Amino acid sequence: MRRLQLLGFFAFLLISISATAQDQNLRQYGIEIGVMETDSLNAITDVAGVKVGHRTIIKGDSIRTGVTAIRPHPGNIFQQKVPAAVYVGNGFGKLAGSTQIEELGNLETPIILTNTLSVPTAADALIDYTFQFRENRNVRSVNPVVGETNDGYLNDIRGRHVSKEHVLAAIKNAKSDSIKQGNVGAGTGTIAFGFKGGIGTASRKLPADMGGYTVGVLVQSNFGGVLQISGVPIGKELNKYYLSDRLNESPDGSCMIIVATDAPLAARNLERLAKRAVLGLAKTGGIASNGSGDYIIAFSTAKENRISHQSANRTQEKTILKNNALSPLFMAVNEATEEAIINSLFQAQTMSGRNGHTINELPVDSVLKLMGKYGRGSQ
Amino acid sequence: MRRLQLLGFFAFLLISISATAQDQNLRQYGIEIGVMETDSLNAITDVAGVKVGHRTIIKGDSIRTGVTAIRPHPGNIFQQKVPAAVYVGNGFGKLAGSTQIEELGNLETPIILTNTLSVPTAADALIDYTFQFRENRNVRSVNPVVGETNDGYLNDIRGRHVSKEHVLAAIKNAKSDSIKQGNVGAGTGTIAFGFKGGIGTASRKLPADMGGYTVGVLVQSNFGGVLQISGVPIGKELNKYYLSDRLNESPDGSCMIIVATDAPLAARNLERLAKRAVLGLAKTGGIASNGSGDYIIAFSTAKENRISHQSANRTQEKTILKNNALSPLFMAVNEATEEAIINSLFQAQTMSGRNGHTINELPVDSVLKLMGKYGRGSQ
Amino acid sequence: MRRLQLLGFFAFLLISISATAQDQNLRQYGIEIGVMETDSLNAITDVAGVKVGHRTIIKGDSIRTGVTAIRPHPGNIFQQKVPAAVYVGNGFGKLAGSTQIEELGNLETPIILTNTLSVPTAADALIDYTFQFRENRNVRSVNPVVGETNDGYLNDIRGRHVSKEHVLAAIKNAKSDSIKQGNVGAGTGTIAFGFKGGIGTASRKLPADMGGYTVGVLVQSNFGGVLQISGVPIGKELNKYYLSDRLNESPDGSCMIIVATDAPLAARNLERLAKRAVLGLAKTGGIASNGSGDYIIAFSTAKENRISHQSANRTQEKTILKNNALSPLFMAVNEATEEAIINSLFQAQTMSGRNGHTINELPVDSVLKLMGKYGRGSQ
Amino acid sequence: MRRLQLLGFFAFLLISISATAQDQNLRQYGIEIGVMETDSLNAITDVAGVKVGHRTIIKGDSIRTGVTAIRPHPGNIFQQKVPAAVYVGNGFGKLAGSTQIEELGNLETPIILTNTLSVPTAADALIDYTFQFRENRNVRSVNPVVGETNDGYLNDIRGRHVSKEHVLAAIKNAKSDSIKQGNVGAGTGTIAFGFKGGIGTASRKLPADMGGYTVGVLVQSNFGGVLQISGVPIGKELNKYYLSDRLNESPDGSCMIIVATDAPLAARNLERLAKRAVLGLAKTGGIASNGSGDYIIAFSTAKENRISHQSANRTQEKTILKNNALSPLFMAVNEATEEAIINSLFQAQTMSGRNGHTINELPVDSVLKLMGKYGRGSQ
Repeated sequence: MRRLQLLGFFAFLLISISATAQDQNLRQYGIEIGVMETDSLNAITDVAGVKVGHRTIIKGDSIRTGVTAIRPHPGNIFQQKVPAAVYVGNGFGKLAGSTQIEELGNLETPIILTNTLSVPTAADALIDYTFQFRENRNVRSVNPVVGETNDGYLNDIRGRHVSKEHVLAAIKNAKSDSIKQGNVGAGTGTIAFGFKGGIGTASRKLPADMGGYTVGVLVQSNFGGVLQISGVPIGKELNKYYLSDRLNESPDGSCMIIVATDAPLAARNLERLAKRAVLGLAKTGGIASNGSGDYIIAFSTAKENRISHQSANRTQEKTILKNNALSPLFMAVNEATEEAIINSLFQAQTMSGRNGHTINELPVDSVLKLMGKYGRGSQ
Repeated sequence: MRRLQLLGFFAFLLISISATAQDQNLRQYGIEIGVMETDSLNAITDVAGVKVGHRTIIKGDSIRTGVTAIRPHPGNIFQQKVPAAVYVGNGFGKLAGSTQIEELGNLETPIILTNTLSVPTAADALIDYTFQFRENRNVRSVNPVVGETNDGYLNDIRGRHVSKEHVLAAIKNAKSDSIKQGNVGAGTGTIAFGFKGGIGTASRKLPADMGGYTVGVLVQSNFGGVLQISGVPIGKELNKYYLSDRLNESPDGSCMIIVATDAPLAARNLERLAKRAVLGLAKTGGIASNGSGDYIIAFSTAKENRISHQSANRTQEKTILKNNALSPLFMAVNEATEEAIINSLFQAQTMSGRNGHTINELPVDSVLKLMGKYGRGSQ
Repeated sequence: MRRLQLLGFFAFLLISISATAQDQNLRQYGIEIGVMETDSLNAITDVAGVKVGHRTIIKGDSIRTGVTAIRPHPGNIFQQKVPAAVYVGNGFGKLAGSTQIEELGNLETPIILTNTLSVPTAADALIDYTFQFRENRNVRSVNPVVGETNDGYLNDIRGRHVSKEHVLAAIKNAKSDSIKQGNVGAGTGTIAFGFKGGIGTASRKLPADMGGYTVGVLVQSNFGGVLQISGVPIGKELNKYYLSDRLNESPDGSCMIIVATDAPLAARNLERLAKRAVLGLAKTGGIASNGSGDYIIAFSTAKENRISHQSANRTQEKTILKNNALSPLFMAVNEATEEAIINSLFQAQTMSGRNGHTINELPVDSVLKLMGKYGRGSQ
Repeated sequence: MRRLQLLGFFAFLLISISATAQDQNLRQYGIEIGVMETDSLNAITDVAGVKVGHRTIIKGDSIRTGVTAIRPHPGNIFQQKVPAAVYVGNGFGKLAGSTQIEELGNLETPIILTNTLSVPTAADALIDYTFQFRENRNVRSVNPVVGETNDGYLNDIRGRHVSKEHVLAAIKNAKSDSIKQGNVGAGTGTIAFGFKGGIGTASRKLPADMGGYTVGVLVQSNFGGVLQISGVPIGKELNKYYLSDRLNESPDGSCMIIVATDAPLAARNLERLAKRAVLGLAKTGGIASNGSGDYIIAFSTAKENRISHQSANRTQEKTILKNNALSPLFMAVNEATEEAIINSLFQAQTMSGRNGHTINELPVDSVLKLMGKYGRGSQ
């Protein structure tokens, strides 16, 4: 009897531990991605001034969604726009605001991530947000930027349960310190490589003699392919990958990737930087399938290059990083994207939702064993 | 005496008529644009199956806006998508849905035009619209396509007075016959070349030995430059043009252009077709200024090329017009765009709105005189 | 005595011929294009430092071709690259060098224009040219930029009669003063709107309170459509236009357009500037037909923004014109392109060539009469 | 007698050397890339009709270059063009012919790969080649397609030692069987990840119930990053990677990638297919550095969709693969690109050239040991 109780207790303990277990960072397991140094938080918020906020929406059996807000700087971004670019990896998605970013080379609202069918609500909320500022009281045009992935397997997406209040709360709560990852905000109901996906983040810092710039990446992972972790063929080993079982493992979904840097880049080179995030996605085994909406938004926080909405002068003095100084930044975004995606998997937890669907978390123990088998990690 | 009274009556009648005179079509004044034949209605609805609906929203002193819906065919467009493309003339705008059209080469909702800040509401309404169909009951991803121009000079645009009901009504009311132009639907509050702009439409029919295809264009005119009508320098003559009086005549605004054709074109050539609408805009004196969001969406209604959402087969047999048969279509879209813009001006009427602002209609009598002076029209 | 008289008579004849011979400028006939001021030469060489050189190749019955070189500045452009962009109006053409301009945002050789099949020879010559400079002695990668149109109706284009020497001579001879137009250099054998086309140029100067910048345009006209001169339907009146006589009047060919400015623009806004040249082309009646390779290359000569090939510093201080100061430049390029194309027609002369083909010059007298009929010019 | 013996001994030595000398296929070492099946040759020539020819140019101490020709079908490609697309991974390169492929969606010459400064010569040779066909005797416009990478470290690239004859010979010698890889043709002097690179190829075959299509890839590898082989961190282990030793290991160079398939794709989806090759490049550790010109050209050999140059009919019946059947093809190009790049390294041999420079081949023994350490291969 007591034995059974004890067993129960240990089972409980085990569950608790394994609950925390997903909070473990990849690097705490001794797994490293790439060759560059991370910055202090290993998060997009390592880029000074960047803030991230989540609003997780879990209700009843079938609402599993949310909102993640990324603020490029703490001020009124409409008045102090940041240089920005969009790269469309695969355009099967509903990103709002892309053409104006491409044309004018800047971003004038926070970036919101949410589910596919809540893009309109989030865009409307960004207009509300912009109008709240007294200096914006005469503004009559706003370019809301909203990315999305489809969480409709776990979430009652047709119900459109995200409200403007959720969006405004995510913006308001945005903080510049470490970021919750996994089943949080816009990652609440997402799926990656057949496992529970979600929000992930990572960063890289360039060596001082290359400028010492920081690159931070945040992803909303919701796509598929053949999972690799630091080059180890996890998907293949677990027999869970696209084409392994053609009926069940769809590679579709999407991946939204936000890239921030303090390097002084203008729009043309920010687009090139954005493009390199796809390389990181590829290294996780993502295949940018037909049904995956893979978008990257990159912005620079460099203060000297911000674009004042009301500008008295015709010209602006800028400091611009030269083309031939870009390769270390390209590698940084590549590595940080790979790690952010893997982090999203390590941090996410098993989730049940709509229609009794359940998506299991990455089986970390099995993964760690496989990492060991393939000569990685601390095993 | 009675005679005089009669004369007065007729004069009054004449004035009334000439008041309606803004309803007069350009061609009724003997003005022709280009060298090709119009189709029967000289409207986008000449393309078989295309329907257009408006919802005009005029309330109190300051609400002057609306919605225009273009349906590519009368059926369930989500289930029977049409080949489509987007060309961005100048991307200072908020077009929803562009990247998915570009990636997949098709359109899966009606196209909605409205004001800049009502794009989210209209996009949300298109999701509602799509969900109404029984066959779409399992659909969890929709790409709503919404274009806009900024009517914020005459309209309280910050108030976002367009509701989902307005949008749904515009779709529902869409008809395949002649189209109201000028101050109607999404053109209710727009301004072009400093005069009242609005909705305009025109069409061209290719000679039978070139395929006999129809090209129809619908515009929401809200931009500036140096107005030319059939080559006549109206803007210059009226001393009302960009740079003539630098404080008052902004060339900004936007122009949304919808191009429909029954020619069997796939996405690549629809994009090329869309690009040619800019040539027609140029001939009206438009300059695609920095602040003008000029977008063209082109689609083909050719039944044999529609894309079934649920497709049993891996491949589809298509009939595709060859590259070297395209030039007459290019010229058609060029001419129809020019005429649709000019029609929007001829059909629009003086409008007062927000903050007591008034925008005058094109002074048709003066214009006709100038046309005569420059050897045009029936003068 | 009689001799002198005869001499006088011949001199008179010569002058008369050369007077008829269309070296008359459009503006000398009282025809104006647009509303902005031209700069002093009304040529691309109004942009300080820009030089243009021609090499005209006319031999025997069937060689009618040549080379035109545009040098952005008088120095070693490989070492001091200029910000640049390319816009593809219609890509049925063989422009060399486009992708590197787009990627890196700069130009590192002079621009060469020639015939379609001589692009490789010209590109090779640009490599020779670059290698001539002592500072370039270790250079192992060069991006030669060569545009073309097809002069194969008048010229034995298959014979590829342009040599590297011709190209080097055109570069060497480049001058910064007024430019020969019409049947010269790369325009020797080209055809526009069914008449003899060729090289044309024009410029615009912004008002001082808008920056006072100069925009210069040079075209190699070789395309078709429905000719309009300052809005007057010349093509239609002369019954010589695309679709008027479907067998004979091909709208194909191409138009190469070079845009230079001293305004401090980086690549993104240079691309937007380039795009506006298409508007000017449209106003001449060009239709960007399927078979027309219409390309625009734009560059900025602003010294402070030049890109040093060997750069010690990681960053560069730049002065950049803001987005919202661009509209006057957009209008300038629009107008200058229109005028440059019309100039190319006014300056070209009847030419006979390959297979006994003859292309007539624009019938200036008839055109002037028509201009008068339509209320233009000094008639 | 002794002589014969000696000769025999040297012959044996030669054979042994060339046996060690890396003509071993990756798969012969038990290393597999990805999860899909290769087609029979594991080469681009698995796509029926595709032929590949090389011309290797090695002379004296410093000429180490060559030409590789890819023929999409054995016939007159100008008369029977194939649907094609270009994707620019990073545009620091001199690819000839890209804009016309993009505009018209087809390819009308064989594809030539060579060194950067020999692009003009190769383009000129392709014009010669096209003119040789009797049916092309009236052709006056040709779009030669030539890709390149820079072999200037080992090769006297400034000397431009490739002649038109070399190019024509490579086309003529093209065969449809197995392909020489490594230091051959355009890969003679190239460098990848600091080791000797070159030509590589691979293929994938889709399962029959997914259409059974073949995808073949050929690469000219000449770029850098952090080498990974099947996920194993070879570059890091050998301490030879970008940023490990910043002075010596440049990631620059370029990668030309040719993708062929018999799947019936039109240009839009060929571009999407081309884009997926970048994913494969990423998995080898490529970073698409600033100085790397990474281009992909994809074409479809499906006979029913070829485009006749002389077309009597206005329309063409085509069979087109649907968007939602593309994901297996995307994965195929991803895997085949990764393998083709790795093959290029395994097949290349140590090469000395210009200025006494030597580039070592991949140390296969060390690599195989590392593969074993990381749980791969047959070790």
